[in-house]
Amino acid sequence: MNDGSASPHRPPRTDLTQITEAVAAADADAFVAVGDRFDDDLRYLTRAAGSDRASALVVTPSEDAGGRAVYCVPSALRERAERRFVEAARDRDGGFHDSISREVRTDRAGDHAGERATGVVRDLIGDAGGDGTALVPASIPHDAAVYLERAGNELASTDAVATARSLKTDAEIDRLGRIQRAAVAGVSRARTVLAESAVEGARPTGDDRPDRRPALRWDGSPLTAERLRRAVNVALAAEGVGDAGDTAIGVGGSATSHRRAGTTDIRPGETVVVGVSPRGPDGYHGDLTRTFVVDGDGGWERRASVAVEAAREAALAEVEPGTPVATVGGEAAAELAAYGFDPNPEPGEAGATGEPVRGVGLSRCEAPSGGTELRPGHVIAVEPGVRDPTVGRVRLGDLVVVTDDGYEPLAEHPLGIAPEPR
Amino acid sequence: MNDGSASPHRPPRTDLTQITEAVAAADADAFVAVGDRFDDDLRYLTRAAGSDRASALVVTPSEDAGGRAVYCVPSALRERAERRFVEAARDRDGGFHDSISREVRTDRAGDHAGERATGVVRDLIGDAGGDGTALVPASIPHDAAVYLERAGNELASTDAVATARSLKTDAEIDRLGRIQRAAVAGVSRARTVLAESAVEGARPTGDDRPDRRPALRWDGSPLTAERLRRAVNVALAAEGVGDAGDTAIGVGGSATSHRRAGTTDIRPGETVVVGVSPRGPDGYHGDLTRTFVVDGDGGWERRASVAVEAAREAALAEVEPGTPVATVGGEAAAELAAYGFDPNPEPGEAGATGEPVRGVGLSRCEAPSGGTELRPGHVIAVEPGVRDPTVGRVRLGDLVVVTDDGYEPLAEHPLGIAPEPR
Repeated sequence: MNDGSASPHRPPRTDLTQITEAVAAADADAFVAVGDRFDDDLRYLTRAAGSDRASALVVTPSEDAGGRAVYCVPSALRERAERRFVEAARDRDGGFHDSISREVRTDRAGDHAGERATGVVRDLIGDAGGDGTALVPASIPHDAAVYLERAGNELASTDAVATARSLKTDAEIDRLGRIQRAAVAGVSRARTVLAESAVEGARPTGDDRPDRRPALRWDGSPLTAERLRRAVNVALAAEGVGDAGDTAIGVGGSATSHRRAGTTDIRPGETVVVGVSPRGPDGYHGDLTRTFVVDGDGGWERRASVAVEAAREAALAEVEPGTPVATVGGEAAAELAAYGFDPNPEPGEAGATGEPVRGVGLSRCEAPSGGTELRPGHVIAVEPGVRDPTVGRVRLGDLVVVTDDGYEPLAEHPLGIAPEPR
Repeated sequence: MNDGSASPHRPPRTDLTQITEAVAAADADAFVAVGDRFDDDLRYLTRAAGSDRASALVVTPSEDAGGRAVYCVPSALRERAERRFVEAARDRDGGFHDSISREVRTDRAGDHAGERATGVVRDLIGDAGGDGTALVPASIPHDAAVYLERAGNELASTDAVATARSLKTDAEIDRLGRIQRAAVAGVSRARTVLAESAVEGARPTGDDRPDRRPALRWDGSPLTAERLRRAVNVALAAEGVGDAGDTAIGVGGSATSHRRAGTTDIRPGETVVVGVSPRGPDGYHGDLTRTFVVDGDGGWERRASVAVEAAREAALAEVEPGTPVATVGGEAAAELAAYGFDPNPEPGEAGATGEPVRGVGLSRCEAPSGGTELRPGHVIAVEPGVRDPTVGRVRLGDLVVVTDDGYEPLAEHPLGIAPEPR
């Protein structure tokens, strides 16, 4: 999986022969992708971050060489596209590492990206192509698809990009490890803030239910979920990574709909789920979740924590090549049930998607999933959790990379629910 | 433009009659949108942040009431969707503010969102619809469009959502003002860091060209573009907003491709363009750009700064209802030319898109643009700039809201290039 681009100063490289081979296997003429800066397929294929305006990529096998790739971008993107799509893909001798030649085009930049892609397809496959077939990701924008079809191209959808993205190279695993270490810094900051928090300057209410106790105070004022979220995001920013809008602080068991998220005071004995999924400069996501309780009473949250730790262990023990993704999540659920917890009390409690196991990379949620068998190079989040709406919730989430005979965690953070100072 | 939801604790409200009227005007039966959490049309229409899995929205006029809107989400999204799409759209009496009834569906959550939307269209328009017409945004995912077409629906594209989004309500302007004030805090932090930086502990090289001078030092070590970026992002995080991956620090005139972005030392006399476009909790973007020079020699950067300030003034003087967006940018360009600068030295130098004037809202780049005439409620970024690759670049960017007789800035930050301490 060494792709020769482990240097942090250049983007990981994408082997576009994965695409030309899919084109050949489907007896198609070209692969076409169209999307804006939120399109992670294009980001993977081009290694450029894209633009608010749609760009297009056309890849074709060619007889005389490995193939050709043309990236049509808005003018504003030319320099970055040249640098990241073309120059970063060159070997020292100036050739392209995968023998697919790359070029950036900014002509007809005012036209729709689908129209530009159609022109490039015509240009590259010419008469040889005739009424050819273009492989496209299934969710290509409809207007782009219509441009291609009107020009006589048959469209066939492909999951070649999703599959390629799911199998991480060494350089990608390096980036995922870096961002996951930043995620550790973010969660550690939450742990420290909670460890530094105490009940002071407030009289007990005489009611010992957690949500009636006086709030924790930190740095001179009540500790709210929003203050904790900001502290985490400041720590992430100091690491040089963005929170990607995905730092979530879940207090207690009730849904945030019933307890206004930002202004919720955090009280002793309440479960505090801290989930972060920062994004690094090359676009890769981390994913780490821990649960803390300040001054817990050793009741439900202790039992839940033991069960979730056991579920995590059981799930991770299944992680190896050949195991279907769903089996890993199933192991976690079975273990939670064995401990007497409802393994699926609320669809979607487990992080971004409701699934306790999912692929992570340029997207926070990508392949592999479901029945797909794990392969070396898959990077997955394993994230079991339980929730009792009247008491609390506990969740533990980690990123691991599948190896030849098991897995390796991408970074480590203690599991305990008592927030120890750093 | 008061929509009764100016409270910061609830999302701005979207008047879905803008959609039912478009459906009626096109003699169509329903409006359908499909997208994931990066789809800002869906975010606008539903006020929910979406999910990594695609969701679908179907809106139909109805004879007995104003209309119906059904939001099909993954199970994981139900609580948030109910809260933000349904509950936040109710008036005190429990009715919907725009007389469009709203519901969230999580049935068939395993099916493709396009398939679910197709089922809802059949359900809502029934036999009355027959082989109906569905209005869709032009860039609806192709696979979703195919589901709709195969079920007998004709598709027609609409820009009703883009138009509705471009006309901001009071509550939306309130959110944009908040996030723009956070943007001011971010740029102010950069200004402070630069004001605190100095040349010390380093001997002059004897060569007075800016890029040969000793680097600035801040807080004990050389000030790099990456350190400045982190300081800005820490300030944004402390304000409770995310940098959205869009904080850009441009040092000098040469492209970052030639001077490795993150590790570039900042030197006295070099132009430093600081551009931020943070995103707030309701999804709205700020947009602010300033240029600083530490210890400038009063040469090119002073002349450029005078020209760009004049261009900014000239452009803003054109901002009023009835003026085409392109005219505002044209005024800036004419003024730069009058000062002897190439108004378009490098396509795309102006921020996100290469256009000196563009709409900003849930997307960093949205309507209005080009020949569209300004209307009250449009929020636009006005961002003139110049660049000489051998010397430096200067850019000033602000967000303003179009009013009945001109414009109001959404927040203010000084224009000067000498970084004064706060």
